[in-house]
Amino acid sequence: MTDARRRHDPEARSFASDNYAGVHPEIMRALAQANGGHQVAYGGDVYTEAVREVFRRHFGPQAEVWPVFNGTGANVVGLRAMTAPWEAVVCARTAHIHVDEGGAPEQAAGLKLWSVPTPDGKLTPELVGAEAWGFGDEHRAQPKVVSISQSTELGTLYTPGEIAAVAAHCHGLGMLLHMDGSRLTIAAAALGVPLRALTTDAGVDVLSFGGTKHGLMFGEAVVVLNPGAARGVIYLRKSSMQLASKMRFVSAQFEALLAGDLWLRNARNANAMAARLARAVSEVPGVTVSRPVEANAVFAVLPPDAADRLRKRFRFYTWDETTGEVRWMTAFDTTEADVDAFAAALAEEMASGPPGREG
Amino acid sequence: MTDARRRHDPEARSFASDNYAGVHPEIMRALAQANGGHQVAYGGDVYTEAVREVFRRHFGPQAEVWPVFNGTGANVVGLRAMTAPWEAVVCARTAHIHVDEGGAPEQAAGLKLWSVPTPDGKLTPELVGAEAWGFGDEHRAQPKVVSISQSTELGTLYTPGEIAAVAAHCHGLGMLLHMDGSRLTIAAAALGVPLRALTTDAGVDVLSFGGTKHGLMFGEAVVVLNPGAARGVIYLRKSSMQLASKMRFVSAQFEALLAGDLWLRNARNANAMAARLARAVSEVPGVTVSRPVEANAVFAVLPPDAADRLRKRFRFYTWDETTGEVRWMTAFDTTEADVDAFAAALAEEMASGPPGREG
Amino acid sequence: MTDARRRHDPEARSFASDNYAGVHPEIMRALAQANGGHQVAYGGDVYTEAVREVFRRHFGPQAEVWPVFNGTGANVVGLRAMTAPWEAVVCARTAHIHVDEGGAPEQAAGLKLWSVPTPDGKLTPELVGAEAWGFGDEHRAQPKVVSISQSTELGTLYTPGEIAAVAAHCHGLGMLLHMDGSRLTIAAAALGVPLRALTTDAGVDVLSFGGTKHGLMFGEAVVVLNPGAARGVIYLRKSSMQLASKMRFVSAQFEALLAGDLWLRNARNANAMAARLARAVSEVPGVTVSRPVEANAVFAVLPPDAADRLRKRFRFYTWDETTGEVRWMTAFDTTEADVDAFAAALAEEMASGPPGREG
Amino acid sequence: MTDARRRHDPEARSFASDNYAGVHPEIMRALAQANGGHQVAYGGDVYTEAVREVFRRHFGPQAEVWPVFNGTGANVVGLRAMTAPWEAVVCARTAHIHVDEGGAPEQAAGLKLWSVPTPDGKLTPELVGAEAWGFGDEHRAQPKVVSISQSTELGTLYTPGEIAAVAAHCHGLGMLLHMDGSRLTIAAAALGVPLRALTTDAGVDVLSFGGTKHGLMFGEAVVVLNPGAARGVIYLRKSSMQLASKMRFVSAQFEALLAGDLWLRNARNANAMAARLARAVSEVPGVTVSRPVEANAVFAVLPPDAADRLRKRFRFYTWDETTGEVRWMTAFDTTEADVDAFAAALAEEMASGPPGREG
Repeated sequence: MTDARRRHDPEARSFASDNYAGVHPEIMRALAQANGGHQVAYGGDVYTEAVREVFRRHFGPQAEVWPVFNGTGANVVGLRAMTAPWEAVVCARTAHIHVDEGGAPEQAAGLKLWSVPTPDGKLTPELVGAEAWGFGDEHRAQPKVVSISQSTELGTLYTPGEIAAVAAHCHGLGMLLHMDGSRLTIAAAALGVPLRALTTDAGVDVLSFGGTKHGLMFGEAVVVLNPGAARGVIYLRKSSMQLASKMRFVSAQFEALLAGDLWLRNARNANAMAARLARAVSEVPGVTVSRPVEANAVFAVLPPDAADRLRKRFRFYTWDETTGEVRWMTAFDTTEADVDAFAAALAEEMASGPPGREG
Repeated sequence: MTDARRRHDPEARSFASDNYAGVHPEIMRALAQANGGHQVAYGGDVYTEAVREVFRRHFGPQAEVWPVFNGTGANVVGLRAMTAPWEAVVCARTAHIHVDEGGAPEQAAGLKLWSVPTPDGKLTPELVGAEAWGFGDEHRAQPKVVSISQSTELGTLYTPGEIAAVAAHCHGLGMLLHMDGSRLTIAAAALGVPLRALTTDAGVDVLSFGGTKHGLMFGEAVVVLNPGAARGVIYLRKSSMQLASKMRFVSAQFEALLAGDLWLRNARNANAMAARLARAVSEVPGVTVSRPVEANAVFAVLPPDAADRLRKRFRFYTWDETTGEVRWMTAFDTTEADVDAFAAALAEEMASGPPGREG
Repeated sequence: MTDARRRHDPEARSFASDNYAGVHPEIMRALAQANGGHQVAYGGDVYTEAVREVFRRHFGPQAEVWPVFNGTGANVVGLRAMTAPWEAVVCARTAHIHVDEGGAPEQAAGLKLWSVPTPDGKLTPELVGAEAWGFGDEHRAQPKVVSISQSTELGTLYTPGEIAAVAAHCHGLGMLLHMDGSRLTIAAAALGVPLRALTTDAGVDVLSFGGTKHGLMFGEAVVVLNPGAARGVIYLRKSSMQLASKMRFVSAQFEALLAGDLWLRNARNANAMAARLARAVSEVPGVTVSRPVEANAVFAVLPPDAADRLRKRFRFYTWDETTGEVRWMTAFDTTEADVDAFAAALAEEMASGPPGREG
Repeated sequence: MTDARRRHDPEARSFASDNYAGVHPEIMRALAQANGGHQVAYGGDVYTEAVREVFRRHFGPQAEVWPVFNGTGANVVGLRAMTAPWEAVVCARTAHIHVDEGGAPEQAAGLKLWSVPTPDGKLTPELVGAEAWGFGDEHRAQPKVVSISQSTELGTLYTPGEIAAVAAHCHGLGMLLHMDGSRLTIAAAALGVPLRALTTDAGVDVLSFGGTKHGLMFGEAVVVLNPGAARGVIYLRKSSMQLASKMRFVSAQFEALLAGDLWLRNARNANAMAARLARAVSEVPGVTVSRPVEANAVFAVLPPDAADRLRKRFRFYTWDETTGEVRWMTAFDTTEADVDAFAAALAEEMASGPPGREG
């Protein structure tokens, strides 16, 4: 008998990352609907045709969408399409493209990243200015793109006005604005604005739009909001190994996410659970919520030994070894019961420290 | 209402490519089983752990498996792990890595390909020798890997002995053997041998193992058969944008394909349908089967106008514009009725040519 | 005492390659004249300013010249400036960029080369057509540039009309024409035409212009003949490690070569000596001149043992191990006495074979 | 008449950069001695053989030297030889490889640079630690090399002990130490130690050794001090476009520089002139020497209008637009008279400011 069997507990949820979650049932149904028969490979299918229209409804009639496999792929394809080989990208030092993609921008695309320290993971026109200079100087990799993350890797949000300010600054310098929107839906839900308010309307030129963290099995998208800002996406997607042969299964998922309000329901749940978690843990003595909780991430400082004990019950990551800061993330499928159980466990472990600590 | 809807006819099948097919029902069940709850991302899940053992059963206890998104990704990651930046790959001029991957090996990995003309898509020690020379000469990109495709892009097969001969020749030169096995299961089924007879036992060092064409939704794998032959796969998979965050869904599919005999059933069906198709079309006057039908591809020459008429009913590709040669491929889900209907349609269109042609 | 001393015989000349030669005395004087004092680095000097005008006199007022270090550098910078990262280059299989640059185009620039077999090292519109297809197909690295070598690596020449035919074919396809002119002066002298007849006037878009083989100490140049055909040369020269800080010493050499007729005198001598050599060796029994002698290379077939004996007296290279074909090259400083001595030595060694060979 | 003519004033010297200088007369003589006759190209000549021994005398019998064209080339070849494609380099944010090479490390070699802010351009074990972490984590480009500059881009020096401390820290982490020694001779002269005290003996693994700034016409060298630390230099030099065909002319220059004490005389002069300059300008009211003067660079702050007036008489660069800091550099050929004239001119321009400024 070769049939599949379940190897895990489908009720166990952690607070490690939103990509520990599985696939939303509505997405699973979409995959089943898209199955059967033959469809043209590499995006010539009817689901991909349909999802283009769905994206245009969100981002405007000029938007071009290119489904890809994962977030690093979306970022590399998008940034490469915005730059000539001698051009560079200004980003925050905490940007995923800089610190968490295994050097893919440099290794696979030859991109120079000019990284800028920030207090909260957010760039401003002033901070962009720290590296956006030297235009025309052959000794300097030419700044061409600013890349911002929404929500940021620190769980903070740009307002539409803040994005527009960065965009105006970029454009004034002849540069372009890229957004790593692997959690754009989270941001839009938190801010109560449509997706285009944070992107097309704010002056973003090219967007990496995230699906995997929001209930998809796999799938992200390069969305070219300003058609003049990107060249060769169709070729770069292929040569960057991001062209899915059975693309209908990426597109059908995105259609399920975006045609109705699934994206919003999922994001609202994640955000609400983060807020609930922040409230709960901030009441635990000895635990300090260390950053503003604006999206679906809660950063906190607690004693390392308590963190270690808690980790035996719930998986999560240390953010900063030197300060003991940890990151807890909620997902589309996190429940109130999950949060409450986690907070209770945290309280227990904080209370159960070695006696000597209280001395 | 946001739920998914079917946009296509799940009974319509073409003969264009095996990646036009959808997902086998057993694979869909495996995806459903793997869903729910949280699992460690990036391959730390229980399904990936399980699939490693499944691959070892097929390829030997030393085999290391690295699931990736697609075939180009598998080839680039595998080849890059086998080479230093100054080393090059010898392949057939018809190799997918050379002609059909958008230049990914060169653009994303800096790989030089030394391509060799072949009569049938297959390399031999003699043909390898045409480019495997100049060792130690700094002016020559150093030949380090020979890459063969099994089955080939021309629908032909290497016997285990033929692979072993190429492997021995490679190893004698201090080189390594890579196999693009996007259709390895097809080959093994056709030859009636286990997967390892064509790989581990024949001296292949690193394998790209194909799943997508054989009933998976997405998913290929880099399989390192000779652990000394590849370095840094874990890092290269990430920086080549081939690391799936929700990897459990790749691994669960492979487990469903390989733990039992689904791979063999699927491949046997594709091969049997190709044989049936070859028999049927070779009886149609004016149609010539142009290459040996050893796997799941049928190449044929027919008048372009007949091909054009037939294409309005069934999708397929022209292989060679200059000769009018076309390629018809069968898949795991091709039925006898599909084949018979296609052959009948071909006969009709061949018979319905403009009268002037017969003159 | 730290002063330099001569370690070699300044009268010994070989027939191995034109880059075995040294520096022409007029070039040495130019270097001395350019020395002393301070000049702006990286090309802001008066010698570079002057040489731009010299190049424009040869190639037309639109020509832009970018001095670089070596021929591989000129080729890589020029080709990269003509292509987007997803675009590819069609060249002869014997092209230096394909076989003799250690994979630099692929490794340093990510360039895909579509190589075409040719009978004589020369591309024609028909031969270009073998790989210049698939425009718009994302699976195919997009053909954008045709690169030809003048003179070719086989010592053959394109006439102005042949170049114009390839150029027209390229341009008709929306492609561009690149010339590897590491021996362009040789070709122009042999054909008795000005440099621009083979380049600007024939439709070449970007030229690698060679100096090192023609009496310079070092120095080649990327010459953009069609300003619309290249982007970012200034940046690519730097990031391709081809920007000389003390550029005045490259420019002053080119001025000495090109402002008067030194280029022509040097090339004529090399060509005349090759013709003399071809005549002389073709009279030696058992030696066959194997290719047309149109430039400064003589290819010949002779018994390997005779070649080995001769090599103990004069250095030269075997071109094809399988046929015993060797290549003899002449240079700007080859003398009639050198040729005559070499031919005499060849005749001696041919006559001194082991007795058994004659049996 | 085609002969060269002098286009510049051989007595005019600026304080812009040590690469504005020309060629030392002893180097010119060495070039003349190496000229004439034929020598094997690409480093098979007797001058390259000789210079290997000269380098070994300085750096130890295990040292391998690879002459290249320029400093960016030396850095890229060396760093690439020390790293696998997934490995990264930790450097100071002021490092030339990071800020002044047009992105060559990223674009030509795919190298990720982890840059660290420093107070004085110097790394310490603690500062290295800011980015040397995450070993084994596939999401992080793997730190493998630390690159330091000696002297630094800010004109500061590492003592032998400071280098040894960084080296020990690197090696303890399984990392390697690279030195950008484009001004290593300057540092050794300033510290009064042999070259090997700052390199081989301090634990440096691979060195970029600078010649161009110290009297050569062109030429730098990759010096592998620890043979186990670098792979494939011979191939990488070629594919990085750094292989000179007429290499004898690079090697002969290095022999002239290093076989005797020319390197030391040249460096001492540059350093003495910088010290003289620092003394002189620090006495000018309104001018502040802004950094320690340890090598051949003087950084100073003065009113921008005075700097602009002075720049009409002597060329130099602004280092920091925001503070008005400028950089003045001395060279092997800077004379006491040059310094005194410059200081006098500075005093004049400082005194001649618009009356309003003093108000």
